[in-house]
Amino acid sequence: MTTAPDFGVSLELNLVEQRIRESLASEEPLLTEIAEYVIASGGKRVRPLVTLLAFKSVGGKSVGRVVDIAAALELIHSASLIHDDINDGGMERRGRPAAYLKFGIQEALVTGDFMFTKAFRIGGKFDDDIVDMTARVAAGLAEGEIRQKRHIGDVTLGPEEYFDIISRKTAMPIATGARIGALIGDARAEQIEAAGAYGLNLGMAFQIVDDVLDVVGDGVTLGKRPGMDIKEGNVTILSIHALQDGSVSDRSELIRILRKRSKDWGEVQTARRLIQESGAVPKARSEARAYGERAVAALDGLPDVDARRQMRDLVEFVLSRDV
Amino acid sequence: MTTAPDFGVSLELNLVEQRIRESLASEEPLLTEIAEYVIASGGKRVRPLVTLLAFKSVGGKSVGRVVDIAAALELIHSASLIHDDINDGGMERRGRPAAYLKFGIQEALVTGDFMFTKAFRIGGKFDDDIVDMTARVAAGLAEGEIRQKRHIGDVTLGPEEYFDIISRKTAMPIATGARIGALIGDARAEQIEAAGAYGLNLGMAFQIVDDVLDVVGDGVTLGKRPGMDIKEGNVTILSIHALQDGSVSDRSELIRILRKRSKDWGEVQTARRLIQESGAVPKARSEARAYGERAVAALDGLPDVDARRQMRDLVEFVLSRDV
Repeated sequence: MTTAPDFGVSLELNLVEQRIRESLASEEPLLTEIAEYVIASGGKRVRPLVTLLAFKSVGGKSVGRVVDIAAALELIHSASLIHDDINDGGMERRGRPAAYLKFGIQEALVTGDFMFTKAFRIGGKFDDDIVDMTARVAAGLAEGEIRQKRHIGDVTLGPEEYFDIISRKTAMPIATGARIGALIGDARAEQIEAAGAYGLNLGMAFQIVDDVLDVVGDGVTLGKRPGMDIKEGNVTILSIHALQDGSVSDRSELIRILRKRSKDWGEVQTARRLIQESGAVPKARSEARAYGERAVAALDGLPDVDARRQMRDLVEFVLSRDV
Repeated sequence: MTTAPDFGVSLELNLVEQRIRESLASEEPLLTEIAEYVIASGGKRVRPLVTLLAFKSVGGKSVGRVVDIAAALELIHSASLIHDDINDGGMERRGRPAAYLKFGIQEALVTGDFMFTKAFRIGGKFDDDIVDMTARVAAGLAEGEIRQKRHIGDVTLGPEEYFDIISRKTAMPIATGARIGALIGDARAEQIEAAGAYGLNLGMAFQIVDDVLDVVGDGVTLGKRPGMDIKEGNVTILSIHALQDGSVSDRSELIRILRKRSKDWGEVQTARRLIQESGAVPKARSEARAYGERAVAALDGLPDVDARRQMRDLVEFVLSRDV
């Protein structure tokens, strides 16, 4: 699994990694093993990158503190992924079998709890406002998951509801990470707002691209089987466009597949093809780009330093990634 | 479902209840509904009782703070119960269907996460040492659950390993609640130790009685089907005694049932009968009483006030409860 380039913060990223691993020590070696399995899968580390870059961009000095909070946020993210995979029946994650498949559902569930605990042990040492923001991220993930479940197979879902769901599940956590990074870097209020706006728009772009890749990506590069959104009946901006723009017969076939509870992979492939043929992919990519541009625009509110240029590069990376 | 008497802290208990409910507000009404369902089931509220009484016994004044932390600890406890029920296939809890059966596994899992989050939002505002203690309680629950799973169907489990498991899953969390209650009440160091020793021993007694009731209790009073430990292959001090003291043929039958993965309820009943016939129940009850006596002895380290007398009564309640 490829990770993102290091964007000039490889040292700090390594410290985050180290902080996470330290925190996962347990008298129950199985808990540590499962948690490390999930963490070692790597992923793109977009969240800690955003937090670290926001911190650096405002000239932050207290590296130890930003490393701690980035570790806490990544732990929360990883814990929620473990639980999401259990909930969604996700088979692969970052190129490896999902934790619950490798270690068992019960073991994976408890490991998620354990990682939440460790996140809050780290995050709980910060000031009340940061504790609040961190807890809100975690609560928002739970709320986003429930909201998404509520709309499973809902072919009437509109773009606004879709954007609302992904902002809760992906963009707001990234925005909060950016705000906290700037806050710990002793930023001024308007810089914190700028960092938050950057994170929010970057997060939206990130999730739209993720949803695009579920339609156009290939399993080897992606590290997971594409089509999972369709398989699970998650209506994304891609299927929303296809349901609006496709031919009548394509639309009714797509509706049938999205609504159906147990689909086979042949049907999932059909749906991916129908979505591609509708022209939904370039439309979604251009929406992602629009969010990316807003993220770049928000950077005007931050000092003109190296880290800010890296934040601009990160937008490009997120928009052009194929994994 | 009967709750415990209020032990002179009904006002504070109500505040804890209120604090929990306030914290569960969510834009996703389903999350609030599931969480309130679990909380409304009541339970015996032994944990908040211990925290509140320890606080009062040392003359604590900052009621708002102790109410907050008792609410956080009860939220952690309830969240872990939701996840445990998913893991163990528990059908009933406090006289009502388990949350995952009523609302669905995915919904219950996410609600557990949501409640953890809310607990840490409250708990994260305290000083580092209390954050640490609280996080350790939550991590210990995960570790205890994994350790218990590791010994499923393990008929070689000895009393020491059993006591170790229940101390992690039940007694240490209660001990920590007592210590935190005393700490927030501005207790002296040795009073905090005394409160902790009280909580630990009370917790051990509580769990042993719980395990006794799984063998002798009836479903109506208990609010859940008895025999779940046997059904799940959890080896408790009851089966440990029975495996030591029963007749050769009874022992091999009990071993067969405990080891078997999918038992029917007839076999569970047989195992309950074999355990009772072995004389394990009075033996376990006397062990519970020994812990109860140690809890009472620990009270010598606390001021001679009403709350201390209530703590003594709570020991009696825990030992004599049939629910």
